Order: sequence, then structure tokens, then C-alpha cells
Amino acid sequence: MKNLLTINELSKQEIVKILQEAELFKKGQTWTGAQGKFAANLFFEASTRTKSSFEMAERKLGLTVIPFEASTSSVQKGESLYDTVKTLEAIGIDTVVIRHGQDRYFEELAGKVNVSIINGGDGCGNHPTQCLLDLMTIKEEFQTFKNLNIAIVGDILHSRVARSNAEALTKLGANVYFTGPKEWFPKETLYSGKYIHLEDAVKSCDVMMLLRIQHERHKGAVSLEKADYHQQYGLTVEREKHMKPGSIIMHPAPVNRNVEIADSLVECNRSRIFKQMENGVYVRMAILKRALEKRKAGFETIDGGTEKVMEGII
Amino acid sequence: MKNLLTINELSKQEIVKILQEAELFKKGQTWTGAQGKFAANLFFEASTRTKSSFEMAERKLGLTVIPFEASTSSVQKGESLYDTVKTLEAIGIDTVVIRHGQDRYFEELAGKVNVSIINGGDGCGNHPTQCLLDLMTIKEEFQTFKNLNIAIVGDILHSRVARSNAEALTKLGANVYFTGPKEWFPKETLYSGKYIHLEDAVKSCDVMMLLRIQHERHKGAVSLEKADYHQQYGLTVEREKHMKPGSIIMHPAPVNRNVEIADSLVECNRSRIFKQMENGVYVRMAILKRALEKRKAGFETIDGGTEKVMEGII
Amino acid sequence: MKNLLTINELSKQEIVKILQEAELFKKGQTWTGAQGKFAANLFFEASTRTKSSFEMAERKLGLTVIPFEASTSSVQKGESLYDTVKTLEAIGIDTVVIRHGQDRYFEELAGKVNVSIINGGDGCGNHPTQCLLDLMTIKEEFQTFKNLNIAIVGDILHSRVARSNAEALTKLGANVYFTGPKEWFPKETLYSGKYIHLEDAVKSCDVMMLLRIQHERHKGAVSLEKADYHQQYGLTVEREKHMKPGSIIMHPAPVNRNVEIADSLVECNRSRIFKQMENGVYVRMAILKRALEKRKAGFETIDGGTEKVMEGII
Repeated sequence: MKNLLTINELSKQEIVKILQEAELFKKGQTWTGAQGKFAANLFFEASTRTKSSFEMAERKLGLTVIPFEASTSSVQKGESLYDTVKTLEAIGIDTVVIRHGQDRYFEELAGKVNVSIINGGDGCGNHPTQCLLDLMTIKEEFQTFKNLNIAIVGDILHSRVARSNAEALTKLGANVYFTGPKEWFPKETLYSGKYIHLEDAVKSCDVMMLLRIQHERHKGAVSLEKADYHQQYGLTVEREKHMKPGSIIMHPAPVNRNVEIADSLVECNRSRIFKQMENGVYVRMAILKRALEKRKAGFETIDGGTEKVMEGII
Repeated sequence: MKNLLTINELSKQEIVKILQEAELFKKGQTWTGAQGKFAANLFFEASTRTKSSFEMAERKLGLTVIPFEASTSSVQKGESLYDTVKTLEAIGIDTVVIRHGQDRYFEELAGKVNVSIINGGDGCGNHPTQCLLDLMTIKEEFQTFKNLNIAIVGDILHSRVARSNAEALTKLGANVYFTGPKEWFPKETLYSGKYIHLEDAVKSCDVMMLLRIQHERHKGAVSLEKADYHQQYGLTVEREKHMKPGSIIMHPAPVNRNVEIADSLVECNRSRIFKQMENGVYVRMAILKRALEKRKAGFETIDGGTEKVMEGII
Repeated sequence: MKNLLTINELSKQEIVKILQEAELFKKGQTWTGAQGKFAANLFFEASTRTKSSFEMAERKLGLTVIPFEASTSSVQKGESLYDTVKTLEAIGIDTVVIRHGQDRYFEELAGKVNVSIINGGDGCGNHPTQCLLDLMTIKEEFQTFKNLNIAIVGDILHSRVARSNAEALTKLGANVYFTGPKEWFPKETLYSGKYIHLEDAVKSCDVMMLLRIQHERHKGAVSLEKADYHQQYGLTVEREKHMKPGSIIMHPAPVNRNVEIADSLVECNRSRIFKQMENGVYVRMAILKRALEKRKAGFETIDGGTEKVMEGII
């Protein structure tokens, strides 16, 4: 497949290959295969980080970007996502990045269009490039995923990050734990992770992966005041003091300062929050390269040559 | 003139020359004359196809595009279209593409500004590049326009496409017929076309050119339900079966599926709907080249060398 | 400092150096130092001129521009300006241009981020590149600022231009006068300028610098009807006839035609209104070059070699 829709569809080998490619781009690798190729970024939901990161990755690769604004597109005249993507394909676009409020919006597209589709976030569902940049940041820190203890903290139910990251990290050999308000813990234990008390997570985990409270996705009232949330479930200045030596703080951002994390910790020594954003560009370059290469080559699968390298990592 | 405001202003020779240029671009012709030139796309109405098609054409030519969003421009402070265009001229823009809700908005600009103006659609008036891409698609199919029977079907009154296409096709030697709800048929017979019964059009026409119902331009209530419209005036699955052998289906899109055309016919063998979009890029490259060349050369007219070629086509 | 936040922070020498650089760009100077560098334009208020001028300047320099729209950014999810700028820094942006409705918004950024910040206008505060393009236009006309009489006319209280220009012009040796409705004259005489009667200004000043009535910043009702304003404080066709020989008309635009200035005078012989816009591109190229050079070199100050040249100018 040339698309990237969910992290689940990637094998361990593919994930490792993507992370290696991203690291090469970070070291300055250039690739000329995107010259004369066209991309469009279809963001139907607000975004600074993901959108500008893709825009940067596309330009660093030499892709030409055709601007698209949902609010001034024919979507306003009732045109469907399918017809919008087919239109872009017809005018010569090679790859589209899509963020959309509807879970699994891509099901109406996959297999029916020829452009590569890269999922930039679907509803409360998936956000595979966020997952990959998180993995890259963890790998940069610890070189391996094996036996790392990773706590995912907060609004798990509404998070696109929680599910993707739990699945991928477990696949790569890490131990994933969840903590946060019980009402935001999914009833079905779909995710490969166990509940842990926050104070235990703080003391024992190598990575405290905080989630953003998705105010815009909460349909009912949030039962906790911000200050109360911070005290009960947030990474306070006090809790940070008890974190395991060498452990790091991550957050997909935008951060609600003094809610999920104390203001003064956002840029502290343990924080990798801005490093995550930096790595996002390189991960997306790798994903775009993969999409364009695979598109050219058809529907081949990646294999060979990565198994051995992986042994050292996972 | 360096502008392209209406299809009417083009002679047969000019139309043929533009179509030939577009075909050369489709075959891979490159042109370096746009290097170091600047374009801006001023879309005051929603658009996916036309806007992204121009954006693509500009970039394929090597034009640099300066972004413009009406909603965040000084138009919000009451600045007129004239002052907006003069501003873009002052900062060094060479050509502007404009879509605007007001009929013949360009009358306040033409002759008063030095930038080339390309009309991307005015109110219920003109849409010359849509017309040219329709012509290119028909010519690609039938090589000639002479004696082709072409039915224009639907919301003729509110359509920018109906008028332009009827005029141009008649000029090029085709027989143009109109069909659709009588209330949407213009009272004055301004257009060079005759009324035909839908069932007759289906059986006898080489091209069924469907128009989009312009819901956003209908001031009163539409008297027909969508399903009723489809049965009475739409291209149903049943009607398609009776179409003339070798005949094709066109639609400027966005399509109201199951209204103007059955969902399953949008991508059927006879449909040239996505081909039209593809051709739009090449037609716009030709128009941009013409605008920039003419701008450079001043106010010369095109002539010579095309008369002979035309004989074979029209 | 690599930033440009207010005109006040520039010494006479720096202003002169920037104007010289702008003139060189106008004469066709090229500079390759922006290759591989990235800019973003963060406009939180409507703009045509300033935004498109920066977009043009960036592209003429060879900067790559990463698009940013406030209305579709995470600012919609409550993200602060600081976090937005830090995000853009993390993904690799080198310089940001910001327009923001809040006076001195840049105080929460300066010294805390590594990207260069260029102020594209803050609330009723500063607009340093507008000031510089005004200076360039005056210098182009009169070669010197020394002993020039310059009247700033109109909505002084709400203008970002009035304050910046008064300070800079006085510093450069010009005599600055203010005129207009007394209710729009600041109570504190912060500005280096004296009140003058409009009719006296018309007869004696070399530059009539008209200000735009900032309807969108007036909280209470404007006490004058437009036609009355034009008669009392506007540059009417009659007043223009009494202007000093060789004197010029300036306006930062967008112009309220027949309010600040008679419609027929906007493009008259004395008017430099569109020349100002043209010069804006070159001034911004100079400012961007300065930001990128200084960024590369760290926090050095400009000096040397300009003192002598200046003597002839100021």
C-alpha cells in the first residue's frame, strides 16, 4: 500500500525502516524523487503543528504544494470528500494529506483513488504520523523500545494518539500503561495497555506521555475544573521531582499549560515536547518518500534487509 | 488584449490556437517565459476545481504564486476590487485570476490596470476557461466541431457555462441544443441554441453536457425535489442506455450525484467528467502563457498561421 | 537584535543602511543568503498590502514560505502566540512576520524565541516596515530628510503609522506637523510633532501624509459624517490646488476614497500612494536580509561605513 492510514497497518519492519529513513533525513539526507511531484494538504480541522510540519516536509523534499482551504473549497457547495480527492487527482496531484473530523473518513477513499493518502488525523481515531514522531523521539532517547515502561496519561477516550501509540509501542516491545480520569478510560479494553496509578507511573516509567484534553471533542461537561485536573492527573512541579532518573516527558501539543503539565515544565530538561515537533518534519519526509516511491512502483511491499537491523532495536 | 474576460472576445482562430497550445502542454511542452513572473488568484467565491487547476497550471509553468485569501484581505476593511488589484500590481504581480459573484465585475478593471486579468468566473455570466476545457475535451474526442450535435441540459439560466459554451460551439460549427426545466430557460433567446426534448437529445446528440444545479444562486424555492429532477431532467441509468453510440457525457462539476446524473454514471465509460478537469490544467497553462506573452509584447493581436490548420478542425 | 519590532529601536545609521539596501534591491540586486531558509507570515488581522508585500519580498529573496492561517490554526484550540511561534521554530522556520491586534504583542516573544520576529503591525502601536517604506519614498523624492516639512493628517490616535513616522522623520532631521480632528489627537504629547492648521499644512508642507480612518478601531461612534470629514480634514480637489510646488501626497492605504482624499487625487501626479506599495517590497527584502544575516551572525550590531554616507542624506 502506498497510503498511510493507521499505524496498525505497518509491520514492525516497516516502522523501523521509516524511523531509519527519518533519522537519515535529520542527518541531512537529500532525495530528488519528489521533484516535479505535487502534494495537497486537506485539513478539515484546525491544526498548526501537523499542517505546518507536513508543509515543511513537502518543501524540504522538493514537492510542489497546491494550496487547499476547506472553507473556500467546493465542499461549501456540498461536494463530497471523495469527489474532492478525485478532482485533485484529475488535476495532477500525487499525494494528499488529510485531516478530517470523521472517524475513518479514509474508508470511502482507499482503493478507489490513485493518489497516495496520508492520514493527518481522523476524528478520535488515528494519527499515524504523530505516533511515528513519538516513536522516533523515544528511539532517539533510549535507542531501543524493549522493556521500556511508558505511561500514557489523560484523555485516552478522545485521543487519536493513545490508541495508535499503545498499539505500536507494544508491538515494538515496550510496556504500555494508562492512567488518568476513569471516565476517560475506554470501557472496552481494546488497547494493549494496563491501568497504573499516576504516582506509580511517575516513579517507574521511562516516558510520561501526556495527552491533551480535547475540549473540542467533549460533548458533555467536563467534570473537573482545570486546577483540579492538574492536581489530580497533571504533571505538577512536585510530581516531576519524583520522576525516574533519565525519564522524559512527552506531549503531542498544543499543551494546555497548568492543566496536563505545569507551565514551568513545558521546556524543562526532561521535556521532549519541542523535540517531538522537530522530529515530526523528518518522519513526514520519510512517509512522503515512501508514498511517492510506492506510488511509482505500484503496490509492492517493503521487505528485506531490515530484519537484521531491527534485532538491535526492538 | 492580454486579458481573458469572456469567450466571446476570442475569434475562431484564437480559440483554435489556444486549444493547440493546450494540447502541446498536455504532450509535455515546456515554456520558460513564466520564470520570474508572479500570479495571484483572487477567488471571492468557493472553488476547488478552478482554483486548484489554476494553481497547478501556474506552478507547471514556473510562475510564482502570491497567496490571496479574500476573507483575510483588506476587502474586509471595505477596499474595492479595483484598489485590491492595483495594490497587487504595485507590488509586482503580472497576472491575476479572479472569480467574483458579481456579473461582469471586470468592467471596473479592464483598461485601467496593467496586470493581465483572467476571468475565473463572474456571477451568472462567464467562465471562459471552463468553456475552453470543454472545447478541448470535445476536440480530443471528435477531432472536429463541425456538425456535432451538442445538448446542454439543466439550469441554463444560472449557468456561466451554458452561455459561453453555446456561443463558442456555434461559432466553431457545432449544432447546440438546450433542454431542461422550462422555468430555467432564459426568456430572451440570447443564446445561439434551440430547445430539444430530453429523450430526443439522448438519442441524437454526440455530447450530453449536463449543468450543475446552482443551489447557491437560486433565490426562490426550487420547485422540484431532487429525485423528481433526476427522473424528469437527469441523466438516469435508463437514459444512458439509449445514448447514441460513441457519444459522451460532460459536466463542469461539482456534480450533484443522483440529481443531474446517476451516481453510477459519473465514472462510466462515456463520462469525460474527470478528463475535463485534467484538460483544465493544460488550457489554463495556454491562457496564462498567452497573457504573459501578450503582456510582454503589449497589445498586439494574434494572427497568421492558424487559418490553415483550422480548416481541418472547424 | 535580529528582530524588527519598532522603528524606535533603529539608529539613524541603521535606518539609512536599510534604505540603501532597499534601493539596491530596487535596482536589481540579488542575494543568495535566503536559499534554504524558511519564513512564515502570521497575520491575525486582515491585510492585503502588507501581507502580499512580505510574501513577494520573501519569494524575491528565494525564501521558502510555509503557509499559516490564523483561522485554521491551533490558535482556535486556545494555543498562545508564544506556543505557536515556538512550534514554527521547532519545525525549522527561520523568520516570522507577525501582525496582531494586541499592542506590543511581541513582548511575550522577544528574547524567548530564536526565530527572527518582524513586526507587521501591532494594535494601535507600531508598523516599522510601513514607516521604512514611507521613508524610502520620501528619500527617493527629495534625496534628503533635512528641513523637509511633513504634515501627518487625520486619525493620529489610532494610527500605527503616525507615531512611528513622526519619531523616525524627526530623528532624520525633518519637521513633523500634525493636523486633523482634535478628538483624534493624543492627549499626551508623546510624539515629536506640532499642531498645524490644515490650510497652512497644504501651503507649506513638502509631504502631505494622510492617515486612514481606522473605522475598525473606533470603539465609539465617529462624530463626523464621511462627507463632512472630507470637507473639514480631507485632501479635497480644491486644497490640492494650493499645495506647494513639488510637494507630494502619501497614504498608507487602504484609502477611503472621498474621505481622506478625493477619489480623483488617488492617482494624480502628486500622489505617491502606489509608489509607496512598490517600495514596500524592497524595504521588506532589506529587512528580511537583515534578519537572516543577523540571525546567522548572532547578536552583533550594525555599524561602520554608513556614518559618512549619511552625512549627505540627513
